[in-house]
Amino acid sequence: MVSKNKIKLIHSLEYKKYRVSENLFLAEGNKLVAEALSSDLHIVALICTHEFRQDAPIGNPDETIIASKEEIRQCSLLKNPQQALAICELPAWPFDFVQLKNNLTLILDGIQDPGNMGTILRIADWFGIKTICASENTVDVFNPKVVQASMGAILRVKVFYTDIIDLIRKANSSMIPTYGAFLNGSNLYREQLPEAALIVVGNEGQGISEEIEKEITNRIFIPPLSFNPGERSESLNVSVATAIICSEFRRAKLSGYSK
Amino acid sequence: MVSKNKIKLIHSLEYKKYRVSENLFLAEGNKLVAEALSSDLHIVALICTHEFRQDAPIGNPDETIIASKEEIRQCSLLKNPQQALAICELPAWPFDFVQLKNNLTLILDGIQDPGNMGTILRIADWFGIKTICASENTVDVFNPKVVQASMGAILRVKVFYTDIIDLIRKANSSMIPTYGAFLNGSNLYREQLPEAALIVVGNEGQGISEEIEKEITNRIFIPPLSFNPGERSESLNVSVATAIICSEFRRAKLSGYSK
Repeated sequence: MVSKNKIKLIHSLEYKKYRVSENLFLAEGNKLVAEALSSDLHIVALICTHEFRQDAPIGNPDETIIASKEEIRQCSLLKNPQQALAICELPAWPFDFVQLKNNLTLILDGIQDPGNMGTILRIADWFGIKTICASENTVDVFNPKVVQASMGAILRVKVFYTDIIDLIRKANSSMIPTYGAFLNGSNLYREQLPEAALIVVGNEGQGISEEIEKEITNRIFIPPLSFNPGERSESLNVSVATAIICSEFRRAKLSGYSK
Repeated sequence: MVSKNKIKLIHSLEYKKYRVSENLFLAEGNKLVAEALSSDLHIVALICTHEFRQDAPIGNPDETIIASKEEIRQCSLLKNPQQALAICELPAWPFDFVQLKNNLTLILDGIQDPGNMGTILRIADWFGIKTICASENTVDVFNPKVVQASMGAILRVKVFYTDIIDLIRKANSSMIPTYGAFLNGSNLYREQLPEAALIVVGNEGQGISEEIEKEITNRIFIPPLSFNPGERSESLNVSVATAIICSEFRRAKLSGYSK
């Protein structure tokens, strides 16, 4: 049986304040919880139906509570509750600046929409980008909507909240190139893109902030087919632009696969 | 003053049934309505504040109603109402099969999410794709959420609802190549992509339906960096995949721009 306190705890995890004070977040849905059970996350409590428990990986949760569908519905933050929820400890990944020298890294400058954040995590995961650094005003990656939209990418891509200006300055002194998309940037498709770089992604409405812009060494642009402003949209959605840029960065490597 | 009947009419346009019976749809927000006023859409009624009317293009609405902010709020379907709404006639674009022979065209097979639909319209608009054909079970492009998410692309990209199997068969007999993304497709980055083709985009959960799949002549795949299933997401979001595919189709042309 799921206690009232447990239900209250779960619902509190919708809010960052409580995620921080409890050092916990919520993973929901059969697929995500099954993946969490196979990962090295510390799962404090698994709440699931009998059927789910029979089929899912065993894992190592501190506590397992078999619940009825009605109890799951009471716990769930989803519109369409499934059969499993996991209360997980917030992971404390160690941050290693040195590995930025040999890898692609995304830098998020104030992404606000949980759907975009989740989609960007999925893009990173697909293209083998293992680290994301985000400004403190970026939406929290453990917001249940982000966790949901990331479709499991949250278990593999490490997100660090930090002072991104400091980070970019440090990258500049370490000769790690930084890229950002701007209307007056150079044609993305003509660039010789390196295998290691920071790719800076701006806020949905404002784009990359001015103080960050000053530190960016490489200005790029995804050209539209028509340059006549009346003939086309002013911009692409931020996760769409991120996808196209990541695709270009990985293009040389990925065209190696003959499949 | 905005009459009660007008408010009722506007709210009814949230539903396809009423959009069809009234032959109308709703465009909301200052930027979109300004763009609509400059387009060749037939605007049946413009409802806006005095300030908006002074700054916006004149256009040719049948009726202009100057409204208070409170009245706009009563009309609005948005969480954060702006200063203008336009009740527009559904456009009756003529469909011309022949132009598919010389252009890129997107074919949507059951896209459900209004946000994805709007994002796909923006992608099409950016990459100069002027025609989209959608199966009858695809979300309605004049759904207010799609109109909103399209950020004005809806005024330029023409969407036709049709029997897409018939259309693809006809394309096949006319030697127009058709492309679709499948897990066992060939590496997108190694393909010689034509300037004219149909690109088929599948439903969010199910992908491209079986009966459509049979008719597709070219199977492609966006390769992930890691082929180990435990190490990465199972899939990309449908609008993200569409963006990457459109970017590749336009790549040769777009790398011509030296800006």
